[in-house]
Amino acid sequence: MFTSERVQNIEWGDCDPADIVYFPNYFRWFDVSTAHHFAAAGLAKPELLKRYGVVGFPMVDTGAKFFAPSTHGDEVRIETRISRFGRSSFDVEHRLYRGDTLCVEGFEKRVLVKQSDDGNGIVSCAIPEEVIALFDR
Amino acid sequence: MFTSERVQNIEWGDCDPADIVYFPNYFRWFDVSTAHHFAAAGLAKPELLKRYGVVGFPMVDTGAKFFAPSTHGDEVRIETRISRFGRSSFDVEHRLYRGDTLCVEGFEKRVLVKQSDDGNGIVSCAIPEEVIALFDR
Amino acid sequence: MFTSERVQNIEWGDCDPADIVYFPNYFRWFDVSTAHHFAAAGLAKPELLKRYGVVGFPMVDTGAKFFAPSTHGDEVRIETRISRFGRSSFDVEHRLYRGDTLCVEGFEKRVLVKQSDDGNGIVSCAIPEEVIALFDR
Amino acid sequence: MFTSERVQNIEWGDCDPADIVYFPNYFRWFDVSTAHHFAAAGLAKPELLKRYGVVGFPMVDTGAKFFAPSTHGDEVRIETRISRFGRSSFDVEHRLYRGDTLCVEGFEKRVLVKQSDDGNGIVSCAIPEEVIALFDR
Repeated sequence: MFTSERVQNIEWGDCDPADIVYFPNYFRWFDVSTAHHFAAAGLAKPELLKRYGVVGFPMVDTGAKFFAPSTHGDEVRIETRISRFGRSSFDVEHRLYRGDTLCVEGFEKRVLVKQSDDGNGIVSCAIPEEVIALFDR
Repeated sequence: MFTSERVQNIEWGDCDPADIVYFPNYFRWFDVSTAHHFAAAGLAKPELLKRYGVVGFPMVDTGAKFFAPSTHGDEVRIETRISRFGRSSFDVEHRLYRGDTLCVEGFEKRVLVKQSDDGNGIVSCAIPEEVIALFDR
Repeated sequence: MFTSERVQNIEWGDCDPADIVYFPNYFRWFDVSTAHHFAAAGLAKPELLKRYGVVGFPMVDTGAKFFAPSTHGDEVRIETRISRFGRSSFDVEHRLYRGDTLCVEGFEKRVLVKQSDDGNGIVSCAIPEEVIALFDR
Repeated sequence: MFTSERVQNIEWGDCDPADIVYFPNYFRWFDVSTAHHFAAAGLAKPELLKRYGVVGFPMVDTGAKFFAPSTHGDEVRIETRISRFGRSSFDVEHRLYRGDTLCVEGFEKRVLVKQSDDGNGIVSCAIPEEVIALFDR
């Protein structure tokens, strides 16, 4: 599975009174990285939604470990890869670096969902083989 | 037009490295106050959307003046009233107090919108008389 | 260790285009619950910072499992308890319910920190016994 | 006064259930643009804070007009210029474009502040002439 990366600038408003990133922002940035990872694979999320009639890939389980803080003015790099595809779920790993320092590790388990047939809610759906193939390089 | 009010607790993550509220949060809280104002009038936003087939009341114009900062641990009070109804637009005024101190004044011009008939976007729609009547007391 | 709880109203701006809570907000709400838990124990975070000269209790490790989505208009209840105190770290457990439905489970490992003696950064510090005693009931 | 610009990618989590940007995010992005404008002038905000002993440039008055919505997957361009310098305050204008479409106009009045001499709060301070000179081109 291939790895994509993107740069995240850390802004004043991302930080808290301790002058470090307010941690929920890391989950927001990892979510952006997952969307970016699909785009890097050739299937941007808006296109995924339109082509396969899915609603999104909500989170089932996520977590992060924090090794070093960052602050406004820092430019960090997030490396992202999908480590596993299940029938309707997939696992994503993120590593956030400032220079050579690994600052945060994140993981996500997500599931592809569509509207249920009765229109009252969402249900999981199989990940198309051609979607999986996009990441298998 | 009646005035509603609600209490907002200010949290650590709402504040920036200067140890005061990061200002975009005031717009988020005023947006909550507008939704709360509709609920206080007897027509919660989810109900408004369902009953009249509207999509929401997006912002056309908004602003705020900041007189005094607040920080985590503070409990502030937001007073909200609709000052004017037009055909499809309405004006909202917010005043945020900490104790007796007026800290922030906000205004919003919003417009009621629904899906366009061709399904490609949103268009403004007339505010039902019975909705306006809810605030006229 | 005692359990505290608080109510969280879910707002329009907390939700994403799939009409469910954008998941990083759960981490923000759990962070609020941890601060609220300290206040419920009789030691609000601003007071903790002032009395013991600490900077905060940044996250070392956190995660959440999502069992059911929530949306704007929902009112959820978050139950919070500290499950373990170490020398400078402590573990927090959160359970978010909508009615009787367990929707999200979260955990946090945090560490109490103060300014380092040379003023260049933060270092962990021992959790005062009297702080731990506040939760031991 | 010179104009700087930067690109903002609009993400899933920036949008609300109406599938358009949740408007407080525009204020966050304009705040980023103001910080970026200082960096583009050769004086990044962290450097400004360190060199002149200021705490930041909190908002006194801000507003925005919304002409067209944007959504996830959109890439927008924000043009920023300072239109006026006062003794301690300055006015900033932002224009957000998607392609050639002007989508949002924002303005900010900010004031440069430092810690008060007694350490209990913040007070305005004169904008150094050499800071103003950086933008006068």
